[in-house]
Amino acid sequence: MHRTINTQRTRTITWDDPMASAQAAVSMRGIDYLRAMARGEFPPPPMLQLMSMEIGDIEEGHVVFFVEPAEFHYNPIGSVHGGLACTLCDSAMGCAVHSTLPAGVGYTTLELKINFLRPLTRETGRVRCEGTVIHAGSRISMAEARLIDGNGKLYGHATTTCIIFRPPSGTEQT
Amino acid sequence: MHRTINTQRTRTITWDDPMASAQAAVSMRGIDYLRAMARGEFPPPPMLQLMSMEIGDIEEGHVVFFVEPAEFHYNPIGSVHGGLACTLCDSAMGCAVHSTLPAGVGYTTLELKINFLRPLTRETGRVRCEGTVIHAGSRISMAEARLIDGNGKLYGHATTTCIIFRPPSGTEQT
Amino acid sequence: MHRTINTQRTRTITWDDPMASAQAAVSMRGIDYLRAMARGEFPPPPMLQLMSMEIGDIEEGHVVFFVEPAEFHYNPIGSVHGGLACTLCDSAMGCAVHSTLPAGVGYTTLELKINFLRPLTRETGRVRCEGTVIHAGSRISMAEARLIDGNGKLYGHATTTCIIFRPPSGTEQT
Amino acid sequence: MHRTINTQRTRTITWDDPMASAQAAVSMRGIDYLRAMARGEFPPPPMLQLMSMEIGDIEEGHVVFFVEPAEFHYNPIGSVHGGLACTLCDSAMGCAVHSTLPAGVGYTTLELKINFLRPLTRETGRVRCEGTVIHAGSRISMAEARLIDGNGKLYGHATTTCIIFRPPSGTEQT
Repeated sequence: MHRTINTQRTRTITWDDPMASAQAAVSMRGIDYLRAMARGEFPPPPMLQLMSMEIGDIEEGHVVFFVEPAEFHYNPIGSVHGGLACTLCDSAMGCAVHSTLPAGVGYTTLELKINFLRPLTRETGRVRCEGTVIHAGSRISMAEARLIDGNGKLYGHATTTCIIFRPPSGTEQT
Repeated sequence: MHRTINTQRTRTITWDDPMASAQAAVSMRGIDYLRAMARGEFPPPPMLQLMSMEIGDIEEGHVVFFVEPAEFHYNPIGSVHGGLACTLCDSAMGCAVHSTLPAGVGYTTLELKINFLRPLTRETGRVRCEGTVIHAGSRISMAEARLIDGNGKLYGHATTTCIIFRPPSGTEQT
Repeated sequence: MHRTINTQRTRTITWDDPMASAQAAVSMRGIDYLRAMARGEFPPPPMLQLMSMEIGDIEEGHVVFFVEPAEFHYNPIGSVHGGLACTLCDSAMGCAVHSTLPAGVGYTTLELKINFLRPLTRETGRVRCEGTVIHAGSRISMAEARLIDGNGKLYGHATTTCIIFRPPSGTEQT
Repeated sequence: MHRTINTQRTRTITWDDPMASAQAAVSMRGIDYLRAMARGEFPPPPMLQLMSMEIGDIEEGHVVFFVEPAEFHYNPIGSVHGGLACTLCDSAMGCAVHSTLPAGVGYTTLELKINFLRPLTRETGRVRCEGTVIHAGSRISMAEARLIDGNGKLYGHATTTCIIFRPPSGTEQT
């Protein structure tokens, strides 16, 4: 049998109820919410824990995430699964858009497009994903992300389209 | 403090060395390799274990994956992180392309584009992701994926472009 | 000098004021408007005249366009410019979405993604572009297009995301 | 009848045989070929004449195109057809990739993705499309394009993936 105990690797993940922070996400200014999350005032979202991703710098319209590609991110063909770069870029771009929103305004991601330029492996080391808003509109925003290693080499490039949900006019909190 | 022990959730994942199956992936016909993996003759790739995804039906040019969205897949804004749908579609489309390849021929994904049509939540139940080859070329293949729930409702749609690596002519195994 | 009179080709296009039909486009049901345009009750839009494109079958959620690739569509590297397939797919997908809309409801295209699977040339003959709605939502719709020749060979595949503009509730015409 | 003589507009386009310059396109360094075309040493490609587009600055990895949106570019819903922005971005990005290639090396565009951020109209005036290479690989290159008006306002953003065709090693001209 192929699956003997001694070849198996193991990892235990913990997370918190994601709905508590979800409520804060709409009631606070986007940038304030994200910075509070980065400071640990809200628990990190479960998916970040699962993927072992961390949030870095947060400026208005620009948010950074980090990950160190590991064996548990691997696909069946000998490199890191494309889903890791997708998750990282989706987080960085979504949060970049979120960072531009006033309190009471929400968003959701309509679509994401990613180019995988080089394979990520265990040997790549920690990578940095920079999400940047390209267009901040009243109804639609757009962002891009660049995934780079410690030497500035580019591993992936992504773009996204988000729809912005504003409360009926006159009720927006600023 | 927000992070008390009693709100935390925990999950332990195990996986096997992904490089053993990676070697088989190029030496076998794509469809034979994928079916052997589905039968458990190779360990499931780590990322599938991490995300709790399973492979389903495998036909030439058409591969199905399943997942039951769970709390550990959540983003910070109250629904499942877009990275889950990306990972699922990337797997289904990549394997659909892989299923068309003869032994000795490899592929890699150049880009992926996904539309998130409805949010996935813990209440959605098990979803099915169908990857289908749209174009199988000698150098480039293209596939699409549809992500549907138990009632056939569509949650996401994706397309991908893969590059095919063929050995120098005369050496291909068939 | 390379540019002598006798190597030049010439073509004269004519078109009508596009704003007359633009007004009808919002006041009629989408499918009624498109069918009236196909019957010649409205002048064809200028871009279709420029590109020599024609509209074909119109069903709810499914619209066909045709074009015969010609020398005047060429790029500088010896085949038809990618812009022709883009324009064709954008028309077929936009009209497929439009065909699902009631009177008084408008749309605009947020983004388009296209794969060029084979080059179009003067020798390809008349091609058919089938636009089909994949998801018709209240705020967002999505469509795909397939570009095929007379033998059913696939030359391109595209997807698009459109935003739907509905009048304030209570005022929509049905 | 709606189509009376006095509402019709007319425009005559001329172009040259595109195959002469297509031969030069592969035998010269990409940047030399594009600059020769910009200086008028080769006839402009037919599609540029049709769309009334012009080539601007050409640097290695960065090429600019211009167009003045006109009534003949209109769609049936009262603004410029999305096909114009597609054609412009496809040209700017394709030529940006071409500008990085040595003599004897060709390319073709695999896919293009564009976001339409604001509608182009006759009132927009001359717009500028800047194509920039993001990644220049041995087999695959990637570029982006930004479409801006005279005031720097962003109307569209696109990305593209191109495949590079190199001659068998040892025969490449440099």
